Amino acid sequence: MTFAVPAHTVMERCDILARYSEESGRLTRRFASQAMRQAMEVVAEWMRAAGMSVQYDAIGNLIGRYEGQSATAKTLLLGSHLDTVRDAGRYDGMLGVMVALACVERLHTRDKRLPFAIEVLAFADEEGLRYHSAYIGSSAITGTFDPAILQLVDADGITMAEAIRSYSGNPDLQMLQTARWQREDLLGYCEVHIEQGPVLEARNLPLGVVSAISGQDRIALRFTGEAGHAGTVPMSLRRDALCATAEFVLAAETLAHSQPGLVATIGQLNVQPGASNVIPGQATLSLDVRHQDDTVREQACDHLYDQARQISAQRNVALDWQLVQEHRTVPCTPHLVRLFEQTIEEAGYPVLALPSGAGHDAVVLSTLTDITMLFVRCRGGVSHHPAESVTEEDVMVAITILERFLERVIHP
Amino acid sequence: MTFAVPAHTVMERCDILARYSEESGRLTRRFASQAMRQAMEVVAEWMRAAGMSVQYDAIGNLIGRYEGQSATAKTLLLGSHLDTVRDAGRYDGMLGVMVALACVERLHTRDKRLPFAIEVLAFADEEGLRYHSAYIGSSAITGTFDPAILQLVDADGITMAEAIRSYSGNPDLQMLQTARWQREDLLGYCEVHIEQGPVLEARNLPLGVVSAISGQDRIALRFTGEAGHAGTVPMSLRRDALCATAEFVLAAETLAHSQPGLVATIGQLNVQPGASNVIPGQATLSLDVRHQDDTVREQACDHLYDQARQISAQRNVALDWQLVQEHRTVPCTPHLVRLFEQTIEEAGYPVLALPSGAGHDAVVLSTLTDITMLFVRCRGGVSHHPAESVTEEDVMVAITILERFLERVIHP
Repeated sequence: MTFAVPAHTVMERCDILARYSEESGRLTRRFASQAMRQAMEVVAEWMRAAGMSVQYDAIGNLIGRYEGQSATAKTLLLGSHLDTVRDAGRYDGMLGVMVALACVERLHTRDKRLPFAIEVLAFADEEGLRYHSAYIGSSAITGTFDPAILQLVDADGITMAEAIRSYSGNPDLQMLQTARWQREDLLGYCEVHIEQGPVLEARNLPLGVVSAISGQDRIALRFTGEAGHAGTVPMSLRRDALCATAEFVLAAETLAHSQPGLVATIGQLNVQPGASNVIPGQATLSLDVRHQDDTVREQACDHLYDQARQISAQRNVALDWQLVQEHRTVPCTPHLVRLFEQTIEEAGYPVLALPSGAGHDAVVLSTLTDITMLFVRCRGGVSHHPAESVTEEDVMVAITILERFLERVIHP
Repeated sequence: MTFAVPAHTVMERCDILARYSEESGRLTRRFASQAMRQAMEVVAEWMRAAGMSVQYDAIGNLIGRYEGQSATAKTLLLGSHLDTVRDAGRYDGMLGVMVALACVERLHTRDKRLPFAIEVLAFADEEGLRYHSAYIGSSAITGTFDPAILQLVDADGITMAEAIRSYSGNPDLQMLQTARWQREDLLGYCEVHIEQGPVLEARNLPLGVVSAISGQDRIALRFTGEAGHAGTVPMSLRRDALCATAEFVLAAETLAHSQPGLVATIGQLNVQPGASNVIPGQATLSLDVRHQDDTVREQACDHLYDQARQISAQRNVALDWQLVQEHRTVPCTPHLVRLFEQTIEEAGYPVLALPSGAGHDAVVLSTLTDITMLFVRCRGGVSHHPAESVTEEDVMVAITILERFLERVIHP
């Protein structure tokens, strides 16, 4: 272990963890899999070497504890997740656990205790790949675990309850629904994560502070016009579902451009019947709208619904609009955000606070304690892909900032 | 047979022919199939009963001949095709053969001979369903048969040459590439067909005269931008392939509206990666442009290519533009068009000349002789679908007009 270059160690460890996969040739590590067990045992070993006591909780999260100056000290939570999407990169999740571990390791090397204990949480599931239900790990930590999901089955027909048992966990509901801590015993939760977007790269910054985890609306739309022969139906008699969709796509883009921080995306579009010589009779599409201010997001969705209805009326095509999912914005706790901003500023880096458009374990932790997040620049904003990439230099900055942040956290 | 109501007979016969299908429960009749053999034998029987001599040519077209007043008389060709698309309607093709047959039948009943012979052609393939090569039947009639297609194989691995042989045809190239007639022995070719579009219905007309069979460009486009997370990539940093496509779809629609008779259709669109939370990185689409004036069509395509390039440049997305197919317009022969118009006018119907946006056997026949086409109103403009529908009243008008047209055709 190279104490002199902790960022180098973090990079190496992310490489080592990437070897524990369920699929050969690519990284896929689902909840309660053998690959997850092996990866966690490796991390547990690193935790012990860093002076931490180690345990697994009922759902299979790995928890390393580094005691504070007194037995009655409060606890600061650090962490992220160790599960991945299919064919994943090696930093989404893992980087946050490894940076937290590196900071504790440096305290341990200097034999230093803080006025609070630190627990490094390595969640067993955030992505939800195995059971299509995200945040399983963190919800068991906060006691917000949904009992219904214990009956979900994976692709091999194994229920989540069975998976937990075979992982030496305990699917007892009372355990899964009891928070590990009382709110008053915690100082907060801090998560380091790759940005998963291109903003830091575009601004040439190694890292940024997350202001909030943006709210999101997911909407399913369908425009239904009339199919017809591309050669024989004159333009004036057409009810082209794709032309209606095109207007809507541009309306969504224009609206999102008009409001700072608003994003609107049509990511799925299916056109029927889908032959080159047939006018589209039906178009089915997804709409994803996010903003860190819930009012802005709600107004944007209302506006787009009005636009869709106008397009529908003007073009004499039917509109079907279904709200599939709505998440409200989760703000990061202002005093912790400010603490990070001050730390970054004093370290000589420009300060940028930015919302997270993606969801994170911090959303779940916010039900129990104060939260804050640090984003690390990733190349091209790419994530959920083997090309995910961070630089050792940026990781070093993240370690430094988190370390100085820990020194600033005041035991109240 | 009800001579008093020939349209009723035509409707009945279309119903009877619809029973000869390769698939139970729906009408699918491909080139050289057993169903085609059976349907042709039924039609041959009706031809013989109408005083016609009957033969099959080398490719398997059915030809019924009704002699004129003298053995040296020229020949007027009538007809259409008896093959269908998959899950077809019962009028596309068949109606033209049955209306021609009905007119000959009425001549025969009155024991009347015209100053020219009539041949009713029932083509064995126009749709090209079996070998994905359209106009096989008519190209063997005109001697423009493409020898390369004899080696094509169908879904069961049967070559076209084998299919012709098993149908008692003769895949001898010299026969297939020799026109059945000399140009100077023909008066022209006249085809009755359902409109396959909504224009006649919208104008409340039973039929119309085809002015030309419109030229067509088929283009394959691809916009390639950059995929990214729908929550984390700000609007200003996006290169959304679907937004580029939406602009192009509306540009094509606007242009087509601005030119009378122009149609432009994006019928196929595939968006990748195609997840609701991922910005589209690539969009692949078809473009179909048609107009009866080749210059208008060519200028429209040039204009749309410029538009696509502008969109590509402004949005920093790559453009791939491939011309897949180009067909020039085939005008119907003016003196025959005028003859139909006069006939319709004298019969007391409003005259409408309209281009055909769909291709027809008449395109191939135009390489050998003068051509003209009569369109019959079809409900909702629907074709290539079991819901294809014509009224007996409109069919009666078509029979009447074709009959009077025959009386007007002057033997030069």
